[in-house]
Amino acid sequence: VFQAYYQLEARGWIEARERSGYFVRAPRRAAGRSETSPRIHLLQGGDSDLVMEVLERTSRRDVVPFASPFPNPRLFPLEQIGRVMAEAARGLSPAQTVDGLVGGKEALRQAIAVRYLQRGVTVSPDEIVITNGALEALNLSLASVAAPGDAVVIESPGFYGAKQALHRLGMRAVEVPVHPVDGIDLQRLDEAIIRSGAVACWLMPSHQNPLGISLGDAKKRELVEMVTRRGVALIEDDVYGEMSFDHQPSRPAKAWDRAGVVLHCSSFSKCLAPGYRVGWVAAGVNASAVSRMKLNTTLMSTMPGQLGLARYLDQGSYARHLRKLQHGLAAQATAYMRAVQEFFPAGTRMQPPTGGYFVWLRLPEEVDAVDLYRRALAQGISIAPGPMFSNAALHRSCVRINFSIDLDARALNALRVVGALATAMQRTAAARQIGSVY
Amino acid sequence: VFQAYYQLEARGWIEARERSGYFVRAPRRAAGRSETSPRIHLLQGGDSDLVMEVLERTSRRDVVPFASPFPNPRLFPLEQIGRVMAEAARGLSPAQTVDGLVGGKEALRQAIAVRYLQRGVTVSPDEIVITNGALEALNLSLASVAAPGDAVVIESPGFYGAKQALHRLGMRAVEVPVHPVDGIDLQRLDEAIIRSGAVACWLMPSHQNPLGISLGDAKKRELVEMVTRRGVALIEDDVYGEMSFDHQPSRPAKAWDRAGVVLHCSSFSKCLAPGYRVGWVAAGVNASAVSRMKLNTTLMSTMPGQLGLARYLDQGSYARHLRKLQHGLAAQATAYMRAVQEFFPAGTRMQPPTGGYFVWLRLPEEVDAVDLYRRALAQGISIAPGPMFSNAALHRSCVRINFSIDLDARALNALRVVGALATAMQRTAAARQIGSVY
Repeated sequence: VFQAYYQLEARGWIEARERSGYFVRAPRRAAGRSETSPRIHLLQGGDSDLVMEVLERTSRRDVVPFASPFPNPRLFPLEQIGRVMAEAARGLSPAQTVDGLVGGKEALRQAIAVRYLQRGVTVSPDEIVITNGALEALNLSLASVAAPGDAVVIESPGFYGAKQALHRLGMRAVEVPVHPVDGIDLQRLDEAIIRSGAVACWLMPSHQNPLGISLGDAKKRELVEMVTRRGVALIEDDVYGEMSFDHQPSRPAKAWDRAGVVLHCSSFSKCLAPGYRVGWVAAGVNASAVSRMKLNTTLMSTMPGQLGLARYLDQGSYARHLRKLQHGLAAQATAYMRAVQEFFPAGTRMQPPTGGYFVWLRLPEEVDAVDLYRRALAQGISIAPGPMFSNAALHRSCVRINFSIDLDARALNALRVVGALATAMQRTAAARQIGSVY
Repeated sequence: VFQAYYQLEARGWIEARERSGYFVRAPRRAAGRSETSPRIHLLQGGDSDLVMEVLERTSRRDVVPFASPFPNPRLFPLEQIGRVMAEAARGLSPAQTVDGLVGGKEALRQAIAVRYLQRGVTVSPDEIVITNGALEALNLSLASVAAPGDAVVIESPGFYGAKQALHRLGMRAVEVPVHPVDGIDLQRLDEAIIRSGAVACWLMPSHQNPLGISLGDAKKRELVEMVTRRGVALIEDDVYGEMSFDHQPSRPAKAWDRAGVVLHCSSFSKCLAPGYRVGWVAAGVNASAVSRMKLNTTLMSTMPGQLGLARYLDQGSYARHLRKLQHGLAAQATAYMRAVQEFFPAGTRMQPPTGGYFVWLRLPEEVDAVDLYRRALAQGISIAPGPMFSNAALHRSCVRINFSIDLDARALNALRVVGALATAMQRTAAARQIGSVY
């Protein structure tokens, strides 16, 4: 996929700028925005309604769902998964329905531990707790390591679920900016931890949502060393960890966790079996606390689903599926970036994603992304506006696009429509500015 | 089943006493204990370790699991369920993996609404939220209607999950005693609500856990009228609602809910499909709050499981299965009560369960149930001691027995062993008393 970016660059469609990502080629606005101004403030929780609204509208069938948080379900071997699930369901013995209550099914935890080893990470099955998808893994992890009133570091922009969880549990959100090219600044993160007295960080070091970027191995190691030094738990959201566009599978920060302070959360929902709701956390020293909280809140995860996935992982076709998935998504990323280059206003910036299925568009600052979202929705297209991912004014002109959606004629036209709306908004704003001067 | 009780009574094995239940026949201790002393205090949460310990030990394969919270999984049509699940899994379309995100699969919510109608309750599919079993339904309901610091009424003795949830969410537990024959006293409940300023009640009006008793229809209606009058939400735990030993299916308190203040929680885990983790709440006016919290914490419930159960309910064999289940459990209840009558010390009291699979034994007060639990465990038998279900000293000599366990030679012998241990403990205590007098 980087080859494709290089081609786009060679053809003059995009240009690379150091520490800034790829730009759609056009005169850049003089008033560049700083993406790294430190920003530490309490959560307002005010945009939770926007998140709900966008998700709800996006799920309507007549809408082109660029705002969707889900991968295109056509990317998965649903028939094959269905077959092993069917076998697991038919073969479910009475004892199996309640066996593996604490922590989850042993067979699945072992299969997950094997998969960790294949990614170069040593994790004991004993520290793995099976959950209802990664979202429960993250929520249980948070509730296990922090109490109401505690400060917790989250990313800006970042996964809205983190803000919602902190709000729900009465914790204080400390937003640390994530640079759209370089990722989180560890120096700033360290300062934020010290200044706020945070007890935990909830971060996405790989294929960050919504930015689509990753930290390098050295920075991941440094991150783990830092939180260990500060006595802070690291909740690592790694749901796109298996969807790297690199030749090597990406290693999570958990790979460098000697002290057991990293709670590595992931699931099969994004990369293999959407809708089955099987996820997990490798919780290190917090494993028994997480396991107990799981017992107290949702008891256990679906047994046939756990057994079916354990069976699938044993068959050995997972690696092949992942390769196909990664290639498919990388190709889609390129196609989407080309379409954005063609249709979106000059000055729109983006950074090639390292994996996952989101690309983050930074539109000219005259374009209000929530306004753009509403105008696009009126035309049957949903996009995810920046304010879903942060309270920071910084992201008001940003948009997250799910590029796993098939780029057929309808979707291509939808991108064209959104691009035209954004261009029109930019022009109107510019005209208004001129008008106000004369 | 009541016929069987009458037979036992006719044969002189048990005797009925008004408002007190059935007694194993023997001279009753003069110092009768009052079961209805009002008791309102803050939750200590101190016996949470005991709950975890008992559940963990009970799940070991070499233990006779009378303490188990689960129904004997052999009571279920696992093969038939497995077949419809298999069809659902194999036929899962890409769109279905993410469809029905808010509230759950429409087909299942409709099937559940039909089942409500068959029980004489009108519930709209729109107020139903599908959850990961009843435990999640109860937890989401609680978090939706009460905030940290709020007072919430729970039952004593009652489901330990309620206490754990209140503790976890920083709410104040107001324990109201439940009479082992008559159930909760509404006058006392009303007083407790007024005195504590409670915002919600978490109760089990049918087949109460651990007592196994139910309120009558009139009392259920009165209960709903009372909470409506007081502006208090009623979280109705009705997981054994489909397992009534009466000819008529029992109606939940929800049947009399005009104002939408009842959050009726149930699941298929106890009566049809253990291990699948599909439950729901009919949440009335709180439906959208519950639905949103579900989205924020575990997103959605397993899709193939939801579709499989919707398919099973459509086939029409559910009613037949339930009848068989009810008859089987009622017969087991009788067999267990006979065995208790035979093996347990004189003065042991019990009340015939109205449904479900628990019977509550009130042993002579010299018998410490936690002590008995430990002695029985040393012999490979687990029983659930009263302190798991209440902080009240009142229940220190009580034990909950799961009578869905097959009463084969091994289980029968296990009951004999527990009975002998209890008898020995009573004698030792009596001898010690005599010793202390002389």
